[in-house]
Amino acid sequence: MQLCRFNDHQFGLVQGDEVIDVTAAIKILPAYRYPLPTYDLLIANLAAICAEVKRIASSESGVTRHALADLKLLSPVANPGKVIAAPVNYLKHLQEARLDKGIHHKNQIDEIQRVGLFLKANSSIEGASAGVTIARPDRRNDHEIELVAVIGKAGRNIPAANALEHVAGYCVGLDMTVRGPEERSMRKSPDGYTVLGPYLTTADEIADVNNLDLVIAVNGEVRQRANTRDLIMNVAALIEFASSFYTLQPGDILMTGTPEGVSQVFPGDRMTVEITGLGCMLVDIHPDQ
Amino acid sequence: MQLCRFNDHQFGLVQGDEVIDVTAAIKILPAYRYPLPTYDLLIANLAAICAEVKRIASSESGVTRHALADLKLLSPVANPGKVIAAPVNYLKHLQEARLDKGIHHKNQIDEIQRVGLFLKANSSIEGASAGVTIARPDRRNDHEIELVAVIGKAGRNIPAANALEHVAGYCVGLDMTVRGPEERSMRKSPDGYTVLGPYLTTADEIADVNNLDLVIAVNGEVRQRANTRDLIMNVAALIEFASSFYTLQPGDILMTGTPEGVSQVFPGDRMTVEITGLGCMLVDIHPDQ
Repeated sequence: MQLCRFNDHQFGLVQGDEVIDVTAAIKILPAYRYPLPTYDLLIANLAAICAEVKRIASSESGVTRHALADLKLLSPVANPGKVIAAPVNYLKHLQEARLDKGIHHKNQIDEIQRVGLFLKANSSIEGASAGVTIARPDRRNDHEIELVAVIGKAGRNIPAANALEHVAGYCVGLDMTVRGPEERSMRKSPDGYTVLGPYLTTADEIADVNNLDLVIAVNGEVRQRANTRDLIMNVAALIEFASSFYTLQPGDILMTGTPEGVSQVFPGDRMTVEITGLGCMLVDIHPDQ
Repeated sequence: MQLCRFNDHQFGLVQGDEVIDVTAAIKILPAYRYPLPTYDLLIANLAAICAEVKRIASSESGVTRHALADLKLLSPVANPGKVIAAPVNYLKHLQEARLDKGIHHKNQIDEIQRVGLFLKANSSIEGASAGVTIARPDRRNDHEIELVAVIGKAGRNIPAANALEHVAGYCVGLDMTVRGPEERSMRKSPDGYTVLGPYLTTADEIADVNNLDLVIAVNGEVRQRANTRDLIMNVAALIEFASSFYTLQPGDILMTGTPEGVSQVFPGDRMTVEITGLGCMLVDIHPDQ
């Protein structure tokens, strides 16, 4: 099942180029008072939500359909507890980062097992339609396409062998990056620098997460093209690694790292960001206000 | 005003060694349905909450009082959007980190202006009474006492001159740390490794945030003692720096960095963690499960 959030927090079932409005499915989620849950409610209740979506979509009384291309797409996950991201997780990107002083800024670029995972601010999350507003025009700002796994089931010290049972679904991610000497968790956290979309594809739809093609083009020119089989630590290994430090919660976002070919983008650029089976995001670059 | 969260999400007004139960004040906050707000509701409505607390505490019909020492203290902020933290922000700690390979792990230790700020996982937040469970007993696990500012008013590109207007209040913080080569945002994010408390002191109670004594003792032996006047970047400068990258939201946590004297703690240790005017946390170290 492919589920999107759109326009003014509406909820949709994606069917090819069309979206069936299933906003009513969200009504099964209860209201909360302070203190609010610290995980994503919709993802934590995804099985019940999917059943309700199915019921509504097959309703005799008719449904509302939209063209996917007409919708303002929001992040498919609204309330993640944390955004975890993998640095230098493709060998060729590690090599490129070590060779390009515009990337490494005289910092040592180690392999992922030593560098560990970093965090991005929740406030950096946006959907595809918002586009990316360049936060630091005084710096180089790069695109980084990444496969994103959305955690569905909580866990700590999860062995890689069982790790994919903890995944609710997948989406396409853009780990937008300000280059400079500072820690990744700062340079990669400006507002809108974590683009998720175009929608959530539930895990059951993906036959082999270790064999997905990623491709990003800027103004029609391909900049990054890779396959998730070349990940140094794949999704299962990343879940084992992350959960050896902290508990993963439903809705936690796991960005799996970017392949070689990162490059600078400028206001006016349009990116097309696509992963096999997960859809294609159109993301525009806007100038700083 | 000093406000605590305690036991089963109750809310209290701290008066010396006593706490008046003002849980009813929270009723002014509305209920929400998915998607939930991505900032802290209570901090965003702090002025109204404080007025309601005052009204309840002076009620003719009587109030319930507890001894502060009898309460299970929770984190004073329940739903922060992000936890921002400053590395190497006292000169003597920078020197100690550069000299001790148990701290630097062959990574270059730069000054804060170059290193930037890092993020801690929201899932790492706990109150004082939970204690700290050692997450990685295979590693050195250190205490780091820090002054914590809680953002009250949203902002981006906030100049230092106005920055303190964006602070709702302060509390004592423990930035618990697993030593090792990985990025700080991973090593400092195990569950319970961000201890906030004992309560929130509203900003109006603190005459000069740049002249507060910090002291942490382990089993009665003082390990870190410093004054916030020795911060390399003070609270106002940190807010300017952070908000040059991303928007600060009500409830965002700003941990200002730790002074010299960090050292390892072990299961069975008891820490007393105190900052002038902000109270004292008693925090026990527990073994891994």
